[in-house]
Amino acid sequence: MGTYDNNGKPNVMTAAYGGICCAKPPCINVCLRKATYSHGNIMEKKAYTVSIASEKYVAEVDYFGMASGRDVDKFEKTGLTPTRSELVDAPYIEEFPVIVECKVVEIFELGMHTMFVGEVMDVKSDEDVLHEKTKMPAMESIKPLIFDIGTRSYLGVGDSLGRAYNIGKSLMEG
Amino acid sequence: MGTYDNNGKPNVMTAAYGGICCAKPPCINVCLRKATYSHGNIMEKKAYTVSIASEKYVAEVDYFGMASGRDVDKFEKTGLTPTRSELVDAPYIEEFPVIVECKVVEIFELGMHTMFVGEVMDVKSDEDVLHEKTKMPAMESIKPLIFDIGTRSYLGVGDSLGRAYNIGKSLMEG
Repeated sequence: MGTYDNNGKPNVMTAAYGGICCAKPPCINVCLRKATYSHGNIMEKKAYTVSIASEKYVAEVDYFGMASGRDVDKFEKTGLTPTRSELVDAPYIEEFPVIVECKVVEIFELGMHTMFVGEVMDVKSDEDVLHEKTKMPAMESIKPLIFDIGTRSYLGVGDSLGRAYNIGKSLMEG
Repeated sequence: MGTYDNNGKPNVMTAAYGGICCAKPPCINVCLRKATYSHGNIMEKKAYTVSIASEKYVAEVDYFGMASGRDVDKFEKTGLTPTRSELVDAPYIEEFPVIVECKVVEIFELGMHTMFVGEVMDVKSDEDVLHEKTKMPAMESIKPLIFDIGTRSYLGVGDSLGRAYNIGKSLMEG
């Protein structure tokens, strides 16, 4: 996820906790420890972006989760490009295939982590990850990373196991 | 996720929105539309479980997302076993490899969806999904389902792409 600090320096961190949380208005959340540099940035700017990585950026993603924007410019270090969102006061990673731009609408203190609920102002996707029928980003094309805390490793997504709202239909009958 | 209704009838539904949201206290969230039967059950009982499915239950998972507990007993229909949690007032699916038992600690109205933040009272895992070194549930053994809304299908998890806190180390130097 991407944020700006008070000096306009772009920062990015790897968020392990978060997800979609509402359909109308469309909202996602990210949950951060107060100690992170991004936490202070979001508190200030009330905005963040989520840039979804593809497999080939696994080293960069791992690095974004270890280094702190307090000490280093992570964009400069990796050579990735911080592009300023036109909709919210935050940068996104130009090279990543799917970008979600969020305006913070709720902040919930849960304990060690703060939840930032962001209303989705736009989703930008590379043309080549859109499914030909649904015109939505498809995982088989994005090739996103899955974080497995049980083995402390990153996994890819696997094969299709069946169509939703279809493979369970046989159980609806009778 | 599993809940009881006011008559003690166990229900289960497939939740698409949710995830881990705090480390201390350990909390997860699920986000449901008010129209779901489970929504009313959680409001009443302030408890739910999350049972993580493995690949072989893809048809049952799809069915759990289509049928409503208002009309049918989904456990009876699928032959899966509702076991009463000893820690919270909710049932879990005996056959599924990982179970998370939650007491609701926060309810946030976000719009179409309500977020239920649940404090994790226990996680129960089958022995054979625990990683031999970390003793935590490992995705390669659980074989959980991923829901891809872009293709309206379920995917498995794929191959390991690298170790976390490791593969990005080269970027930390210099």
